Amino acid sequence: MDINIGKKAAGERAVDFLQPGMTVGLGTGSTAYYAIKRIGGMVRDGLVIRAVATSEESARLAELEQIPLVPFDQVEVIDIDIDGADEVNDQLQLIKGGGGALLREKIIAASSKEMIVVVDENKLVKTLGKFPLPVEIIPFAWELTFRHLVALGANPVTRMLGNERFVTDNGNYILDCSFGQITDAVELNTQLKEIPGIVENGLFLNYASAVIVGYKDGTIKEITRPYPATKSF
Amino acid sequence: MDINIGKKAAGERAVDFLQPGMTVGLGTGSTAYYAIKRIGGMVRDGLVIRAVATSEESARLAELEQIPLVPFDQVEVIDIDIDGADEVNDQLQLIKGGGGALLREKIIAASSKEMIVVVDENKLVKTLGKFPLPVEIIPFAWELTFRHLVALGANPVTRMLGNERFVTDNGNYILDCSFGQITDAVELNTQLKEIPGIVENGLFLNYASAVIVGYKDGTIKEITRPYPATKSF
Repeated sequence: MDINIGKKAAGERAVDFLQPGMTVGLGTGSTAYYAIKRIGGMVRDGLVIRAVATSEESARLAELEQIPLVPFDQVEVIDIDIDGADEVNDQLQLIKGGGGALLREKIIAASSKEMIVVVDENKLVKTLGKFPLPVEIIPFAWELTFRHLVALGANPVTRMLGNERFVTDNGNYILDCSFGQITDAVELNTQLKEIPGIVENGLFLNYASAVIVGYKDGTIKEITRPYPATKSF
Repeated sequence: MDINIGKKAAGERAVDFLQPGMTVGLGTGSTAYYAIKRIGGMVRDGLVIRAVATSEESARLAELEQIPLVPFDQVEVIDIDIDGADEVNDQLQLIKGGGGALLREKIIAASSKEMIVVVDENKLVKTLGKFPLPVEIIPFAWELTFRHLVALGANPVTRMLGNERFVTDNGNYILDCSFGQITDAVELNTQLKEIPGIVENGLFLNYASAVIVGYKDGTIKEITRPYPATKSF
């Protein structure tokens, strides 16, 4: 992997939030990679934490790094979740799912007291929507779900892997949806949740407690909420 | 199968809504069974329709009855969907999923112009909630999703099949949730949809266009909307 200075700066800074004894969610992707690598070094230096992984990919990396993974039946709550994003705005709303792990990432984030999002400067946007929104759908009658998304103006494109449909870790498909500028992400999220056949979408609206943006000169900027993230459940 | 006079009366009455050339959704369960059987007789007598099935079970029955099934890529819209329910109130709100097919049933219903619900008199209730609400969840980190439901007062129970967890046609688990009397089904549905890991729940709130209730004396009652069902998408 080429070293991306911005991603590395952001990923490594996030690790400063860790404290001994914490249960940590390990995100997926190129920026979370740097966080996991650094956590691995700290664990080998004696830091005692335990972790859960948001994808098969991050589980494998954690094992290589000797970070102890715990099964979910032993997890009451996750103290901190460190994960990347494909787009972030200054209200700490995210688009995730470029890597295809949005559902697992959202499940982990929803059980985490804090979610620290790590991105390089290219992911920070004024308005979400340039990055196509990944929508995970059930294979059964996927054509019907596709049509509902067309009707919603999504311009959906079935994600492929070579000549085959991309299949998520959960056995589902992904439609990459271009809505244009998403000026009301809350409303769009509500509309998407009303369509049966959609398992989850890549909008993370009330999840991030802080976003760490890394720049190519190695500096970082932190965006935090003026108030704690309030999940509606 | 023992003949249940109420179920038979309701199931067979629903078939009167069919017209030649229609695309028909075939529901799952003991009351839809009677509808499918009667449709089979009409098809063999020359009625030309085509159908989609909400479960492997109803697909098999349709084939036995020589009802032509069409793949979803050939379906633009379903004209009428005939399906059962586990509970119905007089606002045409439903609980479905006792048979485990709630997700496929909801996907079909969501693409249907009309949904005719067929039940026997025992399913008609003043307030939903005596029948535990089936909630379909992703196997990954299901313990976390379970805890969110506990926090919501769901008293979830993992559905079993013998000694194994019941697995849906989509590869997921079902938690049967007892919320007590569900006085605000709309609010509960919204709360459930906010929890990642929940694929779908058994509340069908704006789907049924008519409910046909069959009584044990062979009579029926029809409950229709004062206004058309408005799906929010």
